[in-house]
Amino acid sequence: MHERGRYDRAAVFAVLDAGLLCHVAYTLDGQPYCTPTIHWREDDRLYWHGSSASRMLRQLKAGTPACLTVSHLDGLVLARCGFNHSANYRSVMCFGTARIIDDPEEKAHALLGVVNRFYPGRSDDLRTTSAQESKATTVIGMRIEDASAKVRAKGVADDEEDYDHPVWAGVISVRTVIGADQPCPRLLPGIARPDGLSAYREGERLDEALLQTQRLYENES
Amino acid sequence: MHERGRYDRAAVFAVLDAGLLCHVAYTLDGQPYCTPTIHWREDDRLYWHGSSASRMLRQLKAGTPACLTVSHLDGLVLARCGFNHSANYRSVMCFGTARIIDDPEEKAHALLGVVNRFYPGRSDDLRTTSAQESKATTVIGMRIEDASAKVRAKGVADDEEDYDHPVWAGVISVRTVIGADQPCPRLLPGIARPDGLSAYREGERLDEALLQTQRLYENES
Repeated sequence: MHERGRYDRAAVFAVLDAGLLCHVAYTLDGQPYCTPTIHWREDDRLYWHGSSASRMLRQLKAGTPACLTVSHLDGLVLARCGFNHSANYRSVMCFGTARIIDDPEEKAHALLGVVNRFYPGRSDDLRTTSAQESKATTVIGMRIEDASAKVRAKGVADDEEDYDHPVWAGVISVRTVIGADQPCPRLLPGIARPDGLSAYREGERLDEALLQTQRLYENES
Repeated sequence: MHERGRYDRAAVFAVLDAGLLCHVAYTLDGQPYCTPTIHWREDDRLYWHGSSASRMLRQLKAGTPACLTVSHLDGLVLARCGFNHSANYRSVMCFGTARIIDDPEEKAHALLGVVNRFYPGRSDDLRTTSAQESKATTVIGMRIEDASAKVRAKGVADDEEDYDHPVWAGVISVRTVIGADQPCPRLLPGIARPDGLSAYREGERLDEALLQTQRLYENES
């Protein structure tokens, strides 16, 4: 199904970086879990985090095979027969060994990374993370050992003999967009929306804003 | 983490039915896979499908523990410290045993179900599924034995002493919306957009359209 260690990095990173939300599969005591979470990426390393109180996450200590997937739905494809119904989408499955990040320096760096995923430099302006907060957070890291990207981005693909069948067919396009800001009602007077958020504009696509912030992050680090 | 067999069906179904796309975790030869796919639901049974040529799906024959998750991202939550950064979201993890549907009657019914997920009655107007197409499609079913729904739907929740920290904080809302129709360029003359698609209107939320079609489906069956 996939050759270990060989994948198209540009295609894989483009799908990963366009999403804030991923799903991670791991198996604990024979039960697979499909956990939604926020991921971030540095080169070929993926990170995500959770509560240190989670019994599940503690079991990752020794490292466990995992699969982290990011998917974007782009359209509903209505064809002239059931078999050719489909969806337009971009997805990538990343395989590797998920491990709890114990090294204090790597963990501190990773905890800045999740905040700077929103936009580069965000961490500079925040109240500093306390030792207690760091302890309460489990950071998980995984080097991408292998990945496979899949994209469907086209119109209806019916069998040639079906185009005469009298039914509506087409694609209903779908996109995830940014809505209105909801500023915290307790903002201090005179605090403006940060320039770093300029990629996030009402009505614009979230995937494009996230790609833009990731590119800025890579240029600054 | 979760009590087998006890879950809030209304809350779980509301999240499942609002999504077209799910992620399924299963373990094959010790490797977890997190596969994005289209799901549909009848009462407490979930269905999804794939190609019969898939080596992976064939291994589900005997039944295997699985976890099917649906998630909706609703906002980015930017707080005054890293620890309180978060996302607004709705998600549900469903646990059960995934099995290939072999019974011809159940399989035929399920294959109508995926098409009628787009809108109820769609299957009536299509070219009938051939025996060959049915054979080429593997349908997987799973009864929800247990499920857990999680929702975050609120503003920034900072520590009381942090509200004096001079940084912008707030929620950047996000929604998945329906775009313009892309009718197949080979539509026969006089074929109108079906009434069943009326829930899908440009600019409207996809989750609401999907909830509406699911309710119609349940009322008709």
